[in-house]
Amino acid sequence: METTGVWLIGARGSVAVTSVVGALTLRAGLAEPLGCVTELPELSSPAVPGLADLTFGGHDVSDLTLDKKAESLVAAGVLPSRAAEAVGAELAAVQRELRPVPEAGTQLGVARLIAADIDDFRRRRNLERVVVINVSSTEPAVAPHPAHQRLGLLDEALAGPDRVLPPSSLYAYAAFTADCSYVDFTPSTGARLPALAELAARHGSPYAGHDGKTGETLVKSVLAPMFAMRHLRVRTWSGTNLLGGGDGANLADPDTNAAKAGSKQRVLAETLGYQPQGSSHIEYVDDIGDFKTAWDLITFSGFLGTPMRMEFSWHGCDSALAAPLVLDLARLTAAAHAAGRSGPLTDLAFFFKDPIGDVPHALPDQWAALVAFVRGLHAPS
Amino acid sequence: METTGVWLIGARGSVAVTSVVGALTLRAGLAEPLGCVTELPELSSPAVPGLADLTFGGHDVSDLTLDKKAESLVAAGVLPSRAAEAVGAELAAVQRELRPVPEAGTQLGVARLIAADIDDFRRRRNLERVVVINVSSTEPAVAPHPAHQRLGLLDEALAGPDRVLPPSSLYAYAAFTADCSYVDFTPSTGARLPALAELAARHGSPYAGHDGKTGETLVKSVLAPMFAMRHLRVRTWSGTNLLGGGDGANLADPDTNAAKAGSKQRVLAETLGYQPQGSSHIEYVDDIGDFKTAWDLITFSGFLGTPMRMEFSWHGCDSALAAPLVLDLARLTAAAHAAGRSGPLTDLAFFFKDPIGDVPHALPDQWAALVAFVRGLHAPS
Amino acid sequence: METTGVWLIGARGSVAVTSVVGALTLRAGLAEPLGCVTELPELSSPAVPGLADLTFGGHDVSDLTLDKKAESLVAAGVLPSRAAEAVGAELAAVQRELRPVPEAGTQLGVARLIAADIDDFRRRRNLERVVVINVSSTEPAVAPHPAHQRLGLLDEALAGPDRVLPPSSLYAYAAFTADCSYVDFTPSTGARLPALAELAARHGSPYAGHDGKTGETLVKSVLAPMFAMRHLRVRTWSGTNLLGGGDGANLADPDTNAAKAGSKQRVLAETLGYQPQGSSHIEYVDDIGDFKTAWDLITFSGFLGTPMRMEFSWHGCDSALAAPLVLDLARLTAAAHAAGRSGPLTDLAFFFKDPIGDVPHALPDQWAALVAFVRGLHAPS
Amino acid sequence: METTGVWLIGARGSVAVTSVVGALTLRAGLAEPLGCVTELPELSSPAVPGLADLTFGGHDVSDLTLDKKAESLVAAGVLPSRAAEAVGAELAAVQRELRPVPEAGTQLGVARLIAADIDDFRRRRNLERVVVINVSSTEPAVAPHPAHQRLGLLDEALAGPDRVLPPSSLYAYAAFTADCSYVDFTPSTGARLPALAELAARHGSPYAGHDGKTGETLVKSVLAPMFAMRHLRVRTWSGTNLLGGGDGANLADPDTNAAKAGSKQRVLAETLGYQPQGSSHIEYVDDIGDFKTAWDLITFSGFLGTPMRMEFSWHGCDSALAAPLVLDLARLTAAAHAAGRSGPLTDLAFFFKDPIGDVPHALPDQWAALVAFVRGLHAPS
Repeated sequence: METTGVWLIGARGSVAVTSVVGALTLRAGLAEPLGCVTELPELSSPAVPGLADLTFGGHDVSDLTLDKKAESLVAAGVLPSRAAEAVGAELAAVQRELRPVPEAGTQLGVARLIAADIDDFRRRRNLERVVVINVSSTEPAVAPHPAHQRLGLLDEALAGPDRVLPPSSLYAYAAFTADCSYVDFTPSTGARLPALAELAARHGSPYAGHDGKTGETLVKSVLAPMFAMRHLRVRTWSGTNLLGGGDGANLADPDTNAAKAGSKQRVLAETLGYQPQGSSHIEYVDDIGDFKTAWDLITFSGFLGTPMRMEFSWHGCDSALAAPLVLDLARLTAAAHAAGRSGPLTDLAFFFKDPIGDVPHALPDQWAALVAFVRGLHAPS
Repeated sequence: METTGVWLIGARGSVAVTSVVGALTLRAGLAEPLGCVTELPELSSPAVPGLADLTFGGHDVSDLTLDKKAESLVAAGVLPSRAAEAVGAELAAVQRELRPVPEAGTQLGVARLIAADIDDFRRRRNLERVVVINVSSTEPAVAPHPAHQRLGLLDEALAGPDRVLPPSSLYAYAAFTADCSYVDFTPSTGARLPALAELAARHGSPYAGHDGKTGETLVKSVLAPMFAMRHLRVRTWSGTNLLGGGDGANLADPDTNAAKAGSKQRVLAETLGYQPQGSSHIEYVDDIGDFKTAWDLITFSGFLGTPMRMEFSWHGCDSALAAPLVLDLARLTAAAHAAGRSGPLTDLAFFFKDPIGDVPHALPDQWAALVAFVRGLHAPS
Repeated sequence: METTGVWLIGARGSVAVTSVVGALTLRAGLAEPLGCVTELPELSSPAVPGLADLTFGGHDVSDLTLDKKAESLVAAGVLPSRAAEAVGAELAAVQRELRPVPEAGTQLGVARLIAADIDDFRRRRNLERVVVINVSSTEPAVAPHPAHQRLGLLDEALAGPDRVLPPSSLYAYAAFTADCSYVDFTPSTGARLPALAELAARHGSPYAGHDGKTGETLVKSVLAPMFAMRHLRVRTWSGTNLLGGGDGANLADPDTNAAKAGSKQRVLAETLGYQPQGSSHIEYVDDIGDFKTAWDLITFSGFLGTPMRMEFSWHGCDSALAAPLVLDLARLTAAAHAAGRSGPLTDLAFFFKDPIGDVPHALPDQWAALVAFVRGLHAPS
Repeated sequence: METTGVWLIGARGSVAVTSVVGALTLRAGLAEPLGCVTELPELSSPAVPGLADLTFGGHDVSDLTLDKKAESLVAAGVLPSRAAEAVGAELAAVQRELRPVPEAGTQLGVARLIAADIDDFRRRRNLERVVVINVSSTEPAVAPHPAHQRLGLLDEALAGPDRVLPPSSLYAYAAFTADCSYVDFTPSTGARLPALAELAARHGSPYAGHDGKTGETLVKSVLAPMFAMRHLRVRTWSGTNLLGGGDGANLADPDTNAAKAGSKQRVLAETLGYQPQGSSHIEYVDDIGDFKTAWDLITFSGFLGTPMRMEFSWHGCDSALAAPLVLDLARLTAAAHAAGRSGPLTDLAFFFKDPIGDVPHALPDQWAALVAFVRGLHAPS
C-alpha cells in the first residue's frame, strides 16, 4: 500500500527521473537495490517505509515528458534500456501527478498554490504524509534579507511585491505550511533560514540537507580522516571536477561555482582540524554529460617531514549516484516524521556535503549516527 | 629515564635505522612527531611510555654501521640530513648495543644465545621490560611441521639438528623465554604458531602482528568500507605496487610475493563481504628505491547496475611510513605488558595488514578499538 | 564493385566481427570513418581499394553466428545498436562465406583444404585478389624446428605426421600457396619463418605483421621519442594492462603473456637507445571485458639529474581500436599486391607493436614511411 | 675561450640561476648534459658554440645574491648540493656581471642605459656577440598602442613620458639597438611587435620565442598528433596545472593566467585541425614549489563513435626543465647570428609553446626543422 508521498521539485530533471524510474524498476524486482543505503541489513527497520510504499509527484518548470527524459537518460548510459521500457505504464501514471510551477502576484500567493498542489496530491492518493525533496538546479547565493530572521517578518514580506525568498526556500515554506517534511539535495538555501526553522517547529516538520554527497566529497570524507588517524600532515588538497549535463552548465556560472566549491572543501577543515592549501575547481565539459570525472592531488608530510603524495580520479555517473540517496532520504525523513521528529535531522549528515548542524564530517562517524538514528525510530505510541 | 627497551631484529635495515634516528630526533625536539599515532591527543595516556623512555638495541646479520646506513637514507631522501647529523653521538651509543645473530649447533642453542643477548641488554641498561620487534626482511612461506602445534614437541624438536622454525619464529621463541613481548612488523610467521601461543601464555608475554599497514592497504581499509556503506558493488580491485630497496628485491621472489599479495587483498573480502575480481601485483623496480608507487583500479556498479570506476596512485616512502608505527607499537606493547596483558593484542589491528584474531578490518573500527584499548590501560595495582 | 577479398582467420571473434559490421556500417554511410587511417587525406590514393571494394569471408573454429556475436558486442558497448541492426542482411551474406577450419591427416592436407576454401571464395565472388588476415587468439611461443629454415624441408615435414607449424604459420603457408597476401595482427609466429619467406617470394606474395598497435604501445611510441628528443633519461617504465574478453583470458597464460609483454617493451629500447628498468605486466580481469585499462609509470632524470615522473592511464576498447586498422591493412596490403610488391611490407610498421624488419619504432617516423609508401603505389603498367 | 655572452633578464630568478649553475657544473664535467638538446648527436655542429664558450651576465630588479638563490634551489630539490658547492667561485664571478635595472626619465633613456650595460659587458669580456634572454616573470597582456606598428612612431613615443612598451619589449628594443639577438622564454610580448621586427631587420638581429615548452604542452605536442595520425576524434582535452614558486603566484593573476592558458591549448587546434572542448586551468599551490603537477583528461571517439579516454599526470621540476633549453637557445641563437641570420628564427619552434610564425606544432615536425636548421648553419664566408 502506497502511504508515503515523494514530491519532487525539479521532477522532470535527470536526478528525479532516475529516482522514479529506479524505484519503479526495483519495485518490479528487475534489479538489485544497489546504491540504496536503507536496503543494507544494518539499516533495516519496520519503521522505515519500503520502496513499494512510495508514490511520486512533483513540480517542474519544464514540460518535457517523463518518457522522453527517460529515453535521453538511456541514450546517455544513465538508465538501462530494459528498465525504462519495463516501467513505461507506471511512469505515465507518475506523469499525471506532475504540476507546473504556479504563478501568482506575490510569493505568498505562489506558496499557497504550491501547498495546495501538494495537499491535493496527498488527499487524492490517500497518503499518510508527503516528503518534499528539492532536486532542481542549484541557485546562485541569496542576498540576506531581514525577513529571513523571523517568521513574523517573513509572512509580512511575502505578502508584498518583493522576491524575498529564493525558490528553494519558498518550496520549504510551502512544504511546512502543508505539514510536510522537506529535504534539500542541492546546495541552495532551502530551509536554512531562522524564519523557516521557526515555521518547521510550529508545524512539527522535520527537514534535512544540504547538497547530496555523491562523488569527490564522499571520497574526501574517508580519506581525510585516514590522514588524521595516521597523524600525517596534509599540505595540499586540490581537486578538479569536470562535469557536463544540466547541472554542469549551471555550476559553470562563477557565483554558483564558488558556493559549491566552498562546500566541497569544508570536509577537510572539519576532519583534519586545519585547512590545507588548494581549492576545488569545477569545469563544465558538455561532452562528458552526466558522467563526472574528478581528479584530486593530495600532498602530505610524514615522519620527520618526508614529503609524499596521493592522487585519485573518480569517474561516476552523477544521477545514478544521487538517485538512490534521494529514495533513502525520502524513506528516512518520512520515518522520522512518523516517529514525531521535527526540526533539522542532523543524524542524516551521512548523505550531505554540507550537513546542517554541528555534526561529524568523517563518513564512518556519520554512518554510526545514521545506524543509531534508524534503531531509535519507532512510531510514537 | 629510559625504562623501556626496544630490541630490533634487522637493526641495521632501513626501517630500524629510520625508527632509531627518528626517535632520537624527536626526543631532541628537532621535528614534530608526524606519523606517530600515539602522539595524537586521543591516544595520550600516562600508561604509555614516552619517546624519551625508549632505549634501542638489536640483532642483525649485516655489520653495516648505523651512521653509514643513516647516510644512505639521507641520500635516498628518507631522512633529512640535519636529523642524521644532530643525533650522531646518540646513534653511536645505539650502535654499541647491537649484536650479530648468534650461531650454535641447534636452534635451541641459538634461541638461548638470542635470549641471553636480550637479557644482557635489559640488565645492563636497567630496563623494566623489552619489546622485541621484527623489522627484518620478509621470509618465504614456511612448511608446516608437527612441532608447531604443541610446545612440548617444539622444545624437543629445537634440540635436534633440524631447522624447525623460521628465523622470525625463533626470535619470538627467544623473546618469550626471556619474558619479553614480541611484535612482527613483517608478513613472516613470527609468533603465529600454536606452540608459541602456549609459550607466550606461560610467560605472560603479549604479542602483536602481522605486516605493517603502511600504504596501499591503508587506503583500501578506508575506501572499501566506503563502498560497503554506500551499497556500491565493487566488481574489480586490481593493484600494482612498484617498489625498490631491499624489501622490493626480496618481495620480487615469487614465493614471498604470493604471501604478501594475498594479505593485501584480505581487507577487501573482510570489509566488503565478498571478494571482488583482481589481484595485487608487486614489481621490483630498483630505481624507485624506498619510494613506493602503488596504483589501483576499482570498478564498481551503482544504481540499476550503472558501471563506474575509481583509480588512485600513492607515492609513499615505505620506511618513513613504517618507522613511526614501529615506535608506536613499541610503546603500546610495552604499556600492555606493564598492564598485565598477555597473548595476542588484537586491539592493535589498526597497525597491520593482516592482523591476528577475529578483528575488524575497516580502519575506523580499528581506530575505535585502539582508542578504547589505550583508555583501558593502567598499571596493575 | 567488390574486387578485394578479406579472408579473416578467427572470423567469428570480436575483432573480426567489429571489422565486418564496421565496414558495412561505413559503406552504408551511417558513421564517420573514425579510426580508419587510410581515410585521412594524407593517405588518399586511387591505388588503394575503397571500403566498398571489400568483400569478407573467413575461417573459424567456433560456429557462433555473426548476428549473435554482434549482439554481444552491442551489449558490451563495443558496437552501437543501430549499426548492428542496420547491416543485418549484409552480415548474413558474410556469414554464408564463413567456413569451419578443415581437418586432414597431415598439416599439408589441412593447408591444401584452407587454400581451396580461399580459392573458392575468390572465384565464386570474382575477386581480383584476397588478403588473408589473422585475428584469431594469440598462440603460445612455438618450439624451433629445422624445417622452419628451408622451404624444401618444410614441404617434406608437412607431409608427415608431426605438427610442424603453429596454426598462424600454417595459414600463412596456405595463403601464399593460394597466391594471396597475408597479415598477422596477432603476436603469433605467422609468416616469420625463413621457409615461409621463401614461399612468399616464390608466389610474389606480400605480407605484414606483427601484433596490432592499439593502445599502450601506441602511446609509448610517441612518448618515448619525446623523452629522447628532449635528452631526458628514462629510468623506469612500468606498465600494467588489465583486460578481459577472450584475448585477456588467453594472455593470462604465462607463456603467451611473456611473449606479448616482451614485444610491448621493445619500442622503448628501439626509440630511447637503451632499455629502462621496469616491465609490462598483463592481468586478466573478466569484468572489464573488451575495455582495456593500461597504467604506466615513467620516472626520468632531467638537468643535473633532477628526478621527475609521469603517469598515464588509457581506457580503450580493444576491438574498436583494432577493427579500423584491420580494414586499413586489408586495403593497403591489397594495393601493395596489386602494385607488384612482394615480401615483408616494412613500410606498414605504423600499425604494429613488433614490426617486421629493421624499421623505425617512433610513430612519427612510421607515419612518414607510410605516407611515402602510399604515394609510391600505382598499378604496374 | 669564452666568445658568446648570455645576458639574462631576470638573472637572479630560479630559471636563470639554474641555467648558470648548470652550465658551470657541466663545464666542470660534474654531470651529464641531460636535458640539453644541443648535446644530442643529431644536433652536434661546429657552428654551434659549446657550453665552455658561454659567459653570463644580466639585469634583475632584485639584489638577492646568486649563492643565496642557489642555496634555496638546493633546499627545494632543484639543484644538487654538490653542484652548487663546486661552482661557488665561478658563480661569484657571474655575480659581478649583474646590473640593476636602470632608471631614467623616459623609456628611451632606460633602453639606452640597458644597451650600454650590455655593450660594456661585451667589450669588457671581449665577446664576439651577446644573446639577450628574457627569463623574468610573465607580464600581464599589454594594451595595443599605435607606436607598436611602426619604428618611426615608436622611437618618437619612447622619447615621451608614456610607458609605451612593456619591459620585455623594451629589453628587445635595447638588445636590437645594441646589435644583439633576443630570445623570449616567457609568454610576454617581447619582440612580437611590427616596430620591433623593423628594428631587428635594420640591425640584422635574429630573435626567437615565445614561452618555453617545458611540461604539459610538451606532452600535448606528441599526443595530439598521435590522435590525429590514428584518425581518432578528440572530444575533450581538459588540463589542470598546479604550481608554486614565483611564477605560480604570478600566473594566479587572472589576466596573466588567461594569456598562458590560451597558449597552452593552441597546440591542439594546430595539430588536430579543430578545437576540442575543455580548457587548461592554472592554480597556484605554494607548497608544491618548483615542482609542477599537471593532470589532463582526454576523451575521444574511435571506430563507429566508441567513446574512450586517456589521462596523464606530469610531475616535473619547472626550472630544471627550462634551464637546459635556455642554454640550448643561447647557443643556437648565437650560431644563427654568426651565420648571418636575422629576423624570427621559426626553426626553433621546438622549444616554444607559442612559436613565432606559421610553423608546425607537432613536436616531431619541429624536431625535423631543428635538425635541418643546425645542419644548414655555417659561418658566412
